[in-house]
Amino acid sequence: MHHHPWQDTSRPAEERAADLLSRMSLEEKLAQLSSIWPGSEAEGEDVAPFQHEVSETVDLDGLLPHGLGQLTRPFGTAPVEPAEGARALAAFQEKVAAANRFGIPALAHEECLTGFTAWQATIFPTPLAWGATFDPALVREMAAGIGASMRSVGIHQGLSPVLDVVRDPRWGRTEESIGEDPYLVSTVATAYVAGLESSGVVATLKHFAGYSASRGGRNHAPVSIGPRELADVILPPFEMALREGGARSVMHAYNDLDGVPAAASPELLTELLREQWGFTGTVVADYFGISFLERNHRVADSPARAGALALKAGVDVELPSVRCYGEPMLKAVRSGEVPEELVDRAVLRVLRQKCELGLLDPDWSQTASSALPEGEVDLDPPAMRALARKVAEESVVLLDNARGVLPLDPAARVAVVGPYANEQSAMLGCYTFPRHVGVEHPDKPLGVEIPTLLEALGTGLPGAALTDSPDGADVVVAVLGDRSGLFGRGTSGEGCDAEDLTLPDGQAEFLDELLESTDKPVVLVLFTGRPYALGRWADRLAAVVQAFFPGEEGGPAVAGVLTGRVNPSGRLPVSVPRGNGGQPWTYLAPPLGLKGAASNLDPTPLYPFGHGLSYTTFAWEPAAAGDGNIPTDGGTEVRVTVRNTGERAGTEVVQLYLHDPVARTVQPVSRLVGYARVPLEPGQAAEVVFDFHADLASYTARPGQRIVEPGAVELHLAASSSDVRHTVPLTLTGPERTVGHDRRMVCGTQVRVPQS
Amino acid sequence: MHHHPWQDTSRPAEERAADLLSRMSLEEKLAQLSSIWPGSEAEGEDVAPFQHEVSETVDLDGLLPHGLGQLTRPFGTAPVEPAEGARALAAFQEKVAAANRFGIPALAHEECLTGFTAWQATIFPTPLAWGATFDPALVREMAAGIGASMRSVGIHQGLSPVLDVVRDPRWGRTEESIGEDPYLVSTVATAYVAGLESSGVVATLKHFAGYSASRGGRNHAPVSIGPRELADVILPPFEMALREGGARSVMHAYNDLDGVPAAASPELLTELLREQWGFTGTVVADYFGISFLERNHRVADSPARAGALALKAGVDVELPSVRCYGEPMLKAVRSGEVPEELVDRAVLRVLRQKCELGLLDPDWSQTASSALPEGEVDLDPPAMRALARKVAEESVVLLDNARGVLPLDPAARVAVVGPYANEQSAMLGCYTFPRHVGVEHPDKPLGVEIPTLLEALGTGLPGAALTDSPDGADVVVAVLGDRSGLFGRGTSGEGCDAEDLTLPDGQAEFLDELLESTDKPVVLVLFTGRPYALGRWADRLAAVVQAFFPGEEGGPAVAGVLTGRVNPSGRLPVSVPRGNGGQPWTYLAPPLGLKGAASNLDPTPLYPFGHGLSYTTFAWEPAAAGDGNIPTDGGTEVRVTVRNTGERAGTEVVQLYLHDPVARTVQPVSRLVGYARVPLEPGQAAEVVFDFHADLASYTARPGQRIVEPGAVELHLAASSSDVRHTVPLTLTGPERTVGHDRRMVCGTQVRVPQS
Repeated sequence: MHHHPWQDTSRPAEERAADLLSRMSLEEKLAQLSSIWPGSEAEGEDVAPFQHEVSETVDLDGLLPHGLGQLTRPFGTAPVEPAEGARALAAFQEKVAAANRFGIPALAHEECLTGFTAWQATIFPTPLAWGATFDPALVREMAAGIGASMRSVGIHQGLSPVLDVVRDPRWGRTEESIGEDPYLVSTVATAYVAGLESSGVVATLKHFAGYSASRGGRNHAPVSIGPRELADVILPPFEMALREGGARSVMHAYNDLDGVPAAASPELLTELLREQWGFTGTVVADYFGISFLERNHRVADSPARAGALALKAGVDVELPSVRCYGEPMLKAVRSGEVPEELVDRAVLRVLRQKCELGLLDPDWSQTASSALPEGEVDLDPPAMRALARKVAEESVVLLDNARGVLPLDPAARVAVVGPYANEQSAMLGCYTFPRHVGVEHPDKPLGVEIPTLLEALGTGLPGAALTDSPDGADVVVAVLGDRSGLFGRGTSGEGCDAEDLTLPDGQAEFLDELLESTDKPVVLVLFTGRPYALGRWADRLAAVVQAFFPGEEGGPAVAGVLTGRVNPSGRLPVSVPRGNGGQPWTYLAPPLGLKGAASNLDPTPLYPFGHGLSYTTFAWEPAAAGDGNIPTDGGTEVRVTVRNTGERAGTEVVQLYLHDPVARTVQPVSRLVGYARVPLEPGQAAEVVFDFHADLASYTARPGQRIVEPGAVELHLAASSSDVRHTVPLTLTGPERTVGHDRRMVCGTQVRVPQS
Repeated sequence: MHHHPWQDTSRPAEERAADLLSRMSLEEKLAQLSSIWPGSEAEGEDVAPFQHEVSETVDLDGLLPHGLGQLTRPFGTAPVEPAEGARALAAFQEKVAAANRFGIPALAHEECLTGFTAWQATIFPTPLAWGATFDPALVREMAAGIGASMRSVGIHQGLSPVLDVVRDPRWGRTEESIGEDPYLVSTVATAYVAGLESSGVVATLKHFAGYSASRGGRNHAPVSIGPRELADVILPPFEMALREGGARSVMHAYNDLDGVPAAASPELLTELLREQWGFTGTVVADYFGISFLERNHRVADSPARAGALALKAGVDVELPSVRCYGEPMLKAVRSGEVPEELVDRAVLRVLRQKCELGLLDPDWSQTASSALPEGEVDLDPPAMRALARKVAEESVVLLDNARGVLPLDPAARVAVVGPYANEQSAMLGCYTFPRHVGVEHPDKPLGVEIPTLLEALGTGLPGAALTDSPDGADVVVAVLGDRSGLFGRGTSGEGCDAEDLTLPDGQAEFLDELLESTDKPVVLVLFTGRPYALGRWADRLAAVVQAFFPGEEGGPAVAGVLTGRVNPSGRLPVSVPRGNGGQPWTYLAPPLGLKGAASNLDPTPLYPFGHGLSYTTFAWEPAAAGDGNIPTDGGTEVRVTVRNTGERAGTEVVQLYLHDPVARTVQPVSRLVGYARVPLEPGQAAEVVFDFHADLASYTARPGQRIVEPGAVELHLAASSSDVRHTVPLTLTGPERTVGHDRRMVCGTQVRVPQS
């Protein structure tokens, strides 16, 4: 039974939202566009480093009668037992609903980058590690699990994933990014989005757009970029994650692009996102990002003006505060400075989303979890831990094994040295609960069990004598890495940028001295949030193992690779450079960006994008290609058979790169357009079939014009961006085509294992 | 007496050029658009590092009957006595003229960045040193002298100056640039252009555009830039040098901008340069730059197609070869692939310029110098050397004198150490003759006398005991620097980029050890082509003197500063950073690019843009400002009185910066809009009057739209970009104005010394 159309669950969401909107006062509308962050006041600037800049006292009693649109991080502020937190959230939602005349609750959001960022929740590897798996299906499974956890305690929206393509690895948020190739980022991020959305949690694509290209890798610094690079490198992950992943929310980026802050860009947030791409979800502010228009970018001289710019551009929801969209916006609309239609546009989107989430339904409280069981809630159950282990294991990259010391001889005496050998925090990126919140509370437990590498090696090498001194050992494992943290509290993480790619905290000198002091083979193990320059030691290390903050099961995963329990299958999602300087550089470089007569510098990386070794060997047998002609609107299958020619099971990652020898704009020498993980038993073979479509060869010829150009291209079947195993020449025939957001973006892959 | 209109010197150049064009065959037209480089074959790749990539055998007998448009570097290939070179050039021109049916000679061009790049010609300081003088009038005088030298031996066009605004000091061509501020670059480059053009020599603005922003400072690497940054930072020097300096030629840049090579950009070379700015001179290729479209940028698949792209975009002249505009273009026009109208457009421009230069006149040989005296030609006469000394003296920047050891006590025992103490090449940038040509001929003398710093100190400190050991000395002068060279043969110069800003060649370690080994005050003297990181020693050095390849009189100039004969007056045209990494960074940073909560990094320089000390002291007394309101199309005078309050004569550089607190696009915290050198005797005062116009506050609000926005701005009277002595608040009133190429670009300055 219902009195008004908006309460009628049989009507379409659009209609219900419009009806509800029509019944709201201006105060009630604006309340839907703002958020509060309960508990953040008490923690002060430790929790929200910018909050002191925009401090405010939230008057709940004054606010709640108008309703509450959004609720910020109910779990992410302090350690709380999950069940207790869920019940507190449900009670708060009841209070919110009871206070407003429509009886509707807030939309509750949380961080969830490396898992639900709540105390005692599973800590997964960081996104760079997801990139290293080259395994979207696994990432999707992980995200579905994360979403289910969040949903189970009353969270509706997750502020993940990060789709920023790495442009300068000095940027501290490199660890939060998936890699330096747009296709890898697109496919892995889309899988995450699809997984999270499959649980009913709204995925939030961030940061839209360009944030990773900040000058000098300095967080929030200006972004010098033109429309072509934006369209070909930065935007594709957003396009794919919206269209193929079904993301329902987008977060604006903090940065400006060529002088225009993303939060004040109607070109980006409305013309591109809504009008061209057809996005109908919500655009939310990065925390305090609307205030930044006044406080930092200085394109507004008041909170009202900052709010007006953002609202007009297309930011629907202010997070995590009411500073601009609250009282100042109320006055601005009342005085006629801001048309109420702009407010309505945003509120309609919010209400539609709430409707879709069931929050306008009479039984919303089921959805909002007030009916939670009284008992315990386990946010780190064995199935999730097993998933964390699997992601971690697939993400470890064996960069070098020149002297064949890996896997370690079970009889060897192993010295394990270095600051991160027995350090739980080596596993944790900055968007884990302990790093994001608990870092200021060293007395608080981490919430979940996190075996260190040393502990895991102790378990994995029962027969070996582990020691902490190279003297008397047969092999030395040096464990170095980053301390991830927030805002200058780490060597990696948000606000922890690097001046160059020297191993931090004096670890370069540590490694120098170690290599100087021993003639034993040294295995370097890295737990880092970005690639570091390793050229200085390239010829002197016996082996190099790269892990990217591998999460709560990272210790066993890396130990597994060292001992041979795990055959490494990770591939580099970012180039590992030779030298400390020379940044920015990624492999998406045109010929003139490479070495040659023009510059003395050689930016060629030590270990290229896509590189990674295995303990077994693989033979590649390409299939005979057809005549190599495909129409500019057609496709072709590209086949290669990969055989495990070694003694043990292992996984090859077959990569497909496009080389466009002549184009209307300058193109990278090659770029990834497809890939497939191929797990193989010894002696086993599998055929990989890439369903290559000409749309994948499209590029931006002029701003706003993406074309498929007739002419010759090459597809490279490759084991890394610089290890091409076979070249497939193709000729695109027929007329030049202009393609748009509806183009084919994914290269279908099949791995066919012949039945024996 | 003349047969055809083009021979009639009474007719306008436009008309004569058109008439001649109408009489030319296609072969004759194309011959006007190409060049040959006599002598370069013999030298091979030493002279032209790219030449092996585009090698060709020039068939003079086949070529000359069609005429010859351009002649490349007749002096710049090998050491030749100036008079002999002039006579050889004249004889060659007679041969060229005699071979074609119109009897017209080639337009001969040479390099002239730090002086006429010919053997035995005066070697002036590098452009960074011009920037450090903050003295456009002196730079104009220098360029007039350079032009007169070139004209005297038959050169018509000089391939200078470089107007690239420094964006990343790791770039090897930083030494060829004037500085990191567009206004400083604009005014100094415009002065150079006006001086060169005043001699009758065609000035060539290069490199149009964006070259200095190559990724990672790697020469020729891609340029990520948007239209706003291009318009506000990169283009203004070109605008001013064309309009105020009267430059008659522009050279395209090698790089791409957002994927579009400058040489293939009609937007840049035609729409902006010709249609918006009204440029009527010639656009010439950077050497081999048209071939690069095929060979490197890969936007063309043949020389013909590369030529077609360049010609269509607006490159009129191919240099230094005939590879694309020769035979391939002939075929392309014949086959209809390239419209002949495009050829005609370019030829008309070339012929008009030749006409203006007198090369279509019957008596062209006077102009082309075949009537040279039989005797000696002195390209380094005393007046030019005195000018070189003056520029050098004004360019030396005293960065620090914390312990007051400078000027050196005449009675002190001075140890002079370091690899550049007694090294002539410390004075030379890469576009000097010895560096550009003679570097491969170490047996050849440098051509001109170049006293080293040690030699000059020996002259300047007659009573002092100079030693090469700190033991027994009272003060140590450590002389470090760059080796300038071409294409990897130096630590600075074209193709000599830096991975980071560590002092090169182990000199950082040298300085560490020196400071470790002595307790004597150490004065650091730098002869470099870029700023280097000095933060590591900031507190341990007694004084720091920065020179930027100061030319043939650089030794005496720096010695003069050390001994006190010269009171230093140079100011930094580039920021000197604290750390080696963190690039790119310049002072044109918005608030979010500076230190703060967002990033742990602090890019604030050790010595900021505009910084420089003196041996005397100055008091600043601002005049009372008016009401502070000026219309958006008006101006106001800003006055300050500066008094020399010390004991000796000295020069203050009064700098005027604009701070725009709120704007429609993100603005730098401040930017230079005016400056004045103020030489003062002890006790003397002078009033500096800046004629500030609101146009100087204009900025790009949206691509293609430059506006003067009403509202508050601040003018900072400052001794450096971070040493603000007085703030003048202004309010721009009235309507917002859109301004274009005809806006006021120069802030008039007067220095009024009261008559006593």
